[in-house]
Amino acid sequence: MRTIDWVDGAVEIIDQTALPEHTRVLRLSTVDELVDAIRRLAVRGAPALGVAGALGVALAARQYPDQARLAAAVEAVRTARPTAVNLARGANRAAARLARGRDAVLAEALRVRDEEIARSAAQARLGADLVTELCGPAPRLLTHCNTGALAAVVGGTALSVVAELHRRGALRGVVASETRPLLQGARLTAWELRQLGVPFQLAVDSAGPFLMARGEVDAVILGADRICANGDVVNKVGTYAHALGAARAGIPFLVVAPESTVDTATAEGAAVPIEDRGRDEVLHFHGARTAPDGVDAVNPAFDVTPHDLVTAIVTDQRVIRLDKGDALA
Amino acid sequence: MRTIDWVDGAVEIIDQTALPEHTRVLRLSTVDELVDAIRRLAVRGAPALGVAGALGVALAARQYPDQARLAAAVEAVRTARPTAVNLARGANRAAARLARGRDAVLAEALRVRDEEIARSAAQARLGADLVTELCGPAPRLLTHCNTGALAAVVGGTALSVVAELHRRGALRGVVASETRPLLQGARLTAWELRQLGVPFQLAVDSAGPFLMARGEVDAVILGADRICANGDVVNKVGTYAHALGAARAGIPFLVVAPESTVDTATAEGAAVPIEDRGRDEVLHFHGARTAPDGVDAVNPAFDVTPHDLVTAIVTDQRVIRLDKGDALA
Repeated sequence: MRTIDWVDGAVEIIDQTALPEHTRVLRLSTVDELVDAIRRLAVRGAPALGVAGALGVALAARQYPDQARLAAAVEAVRTARPTAVNLARGANRAAARLARGRDAVLAEALRVRDEEIARSAAQARLGADLVTELCGPAPRLLTHCNTGALAAVVGGTALSVVAELHRRGALRGVVASETRPLLQGARLTAWELRQLGVPFQLAVDSAGPFLMARGEVDAVILGADRICANGDVVNKVGTYAHALGAARAGIPFLVVAPESTVDTATAEGAAVPIEDRGRDEVLHFHGARTAPDGVDAVNPAFDVTPHDLVTAIVTDQRVIRLDKGDALA
Repeated sequence: MRTIDWVDGAVEIIDQTALPEHTRVLRLSTVDELVDAIRRLAVRGAPALGVAGALGVALAARQYPDQARLAAAVEAVRTARPTAVNLARGANRAAARLARGRDAVLAEALRVRDEEIARSAAQARLGADLVTELCGPAPRLLTHCNTGALAAVVGGTALSVVAELHRRGALRGVVASETRPLLQGARLTAWELRQLGVPFQLAVDSAGPFLMARGEVDAVILGADRICANGDVVNKVGTYAHALGAARAGIPFLVVAPESTVDTATAEGAAVPIEDRGRDEVLHFHGARTAPDGVDAVNPAFDVTPHDLVTAIVTDQRVIRLDKGDALA
């Protein structure tokens, strides 16, 4: 089952706000519906957002014959969320074909989709080889947020490495951090790990560095929403704290993401716009209030992990050992 | 209003599991009731636990004329939770008077209570002076868990410093981390900060280090459940991650706790038993599930912050500048 796909003239996604309780497919026939789904994280994850961006432009090309309205719709797709580079990049790739007509746009969008599918398997192989090289035959890995099939089209990024290690019999277990505020770890990663049959425990986000200090984690492995030219990694908030914990514990900190997430046009993490998703996500917890009425909150959805804390970046094409001085460009 | 007190022959506490929705006083007339209240965190916070331990022994002295049952009851109080040194220490102080009769036991327990009350004001003054010295006249502070009046009898530890700075007009604002799994920050600290009129924002726990890296926090200030001879600080899980963030950002990391929390008999943090409170706290909140059925979780309630990450420890009697080589003993 694909997280996102083009089916009979519309975009279909698995609604990630309904998981794990309900596996519900949403059919998105208009740009407005797609942009709304992106904003409320019904579809999320950098690779999946790249496909959503491209398919969103394909939708726009069918919906708006008028050039001005088409341009506005493409811009709405491109900017639905600001942080992951994949969304704008996927939209741009499809939009570059607009002059050739809507079928050319759709063909390019489907190429974006198919490339992400192919990339997942390549990342899984390269990442699993690296984990075994660094951690031996039975590592315990900590992962953050959701980087599995639900974050891509199939397979995933960091979680595809976990799955590959499990298939090889080369994984002892996983700690999945719950990933507040929206609990992508507790809801989505737990759901995927159970389907994969991988032994795992959930932990609150703030426990990760301590579990590393106690010697209960052999490496951290997670995804990225944007990787800058200098190797800075922009990813789900909490990534940076885990990187600090890994550095202090002396264990590898591994980032797995497709080449479509590498943004050498952005020099460093400080240049990336960090989405603040507002206080409501912090003040509610799965439908329950967490704090008294009227309380304010700061809610950066992402953070920046400086490149010196990153051991290696694994893409579908290469392993960049930042710890050994490898450069991205 | 006192968080915990002795009223007409029984222990009365504000039920912290009911806040902020309900301000409910629980009357605990038996050792079993008190131990249960401690275990489910209806009363919590290192200073309050010290008083609970002492008053628990006073309850036991009234309830059990039989020596063997009395000894068992005292032991149940002393070991109701393992990590905060205050609980056992308060119980031990009261128990040392058992041979002199129940009135002597109660008198000692009330001294423990009164000492904690006096300590809060002293910590507030010393801590506020130090924050102003280190951070200037309008700092933005990040705090974790709840260290206010609810964690003590009145006033509190780190949050009493916040309150004192606010009274002095020497505080710009506070970031309060929500403190999963039981949300003592979102529920209790937010409630206290609003009553104090302190401007603040909530944040998920994993955002703290990034907010520091972005320059939005001038110092971290929080409490302790046990401070070891070498300066290692055992405190609510998440403390260590915030300490790593503060060190990387180059901002002060300040621990405020009464002398009753200093345990020079324990050499270092690795020697302290860390309570694991089980998976249910991670998998539930306010009746809502966070993860699919049957998922396992690891749930250390505390972590250990190595002394080299601690700028200073403020007690009711002194400021120990670990960053300048001061020693505790």
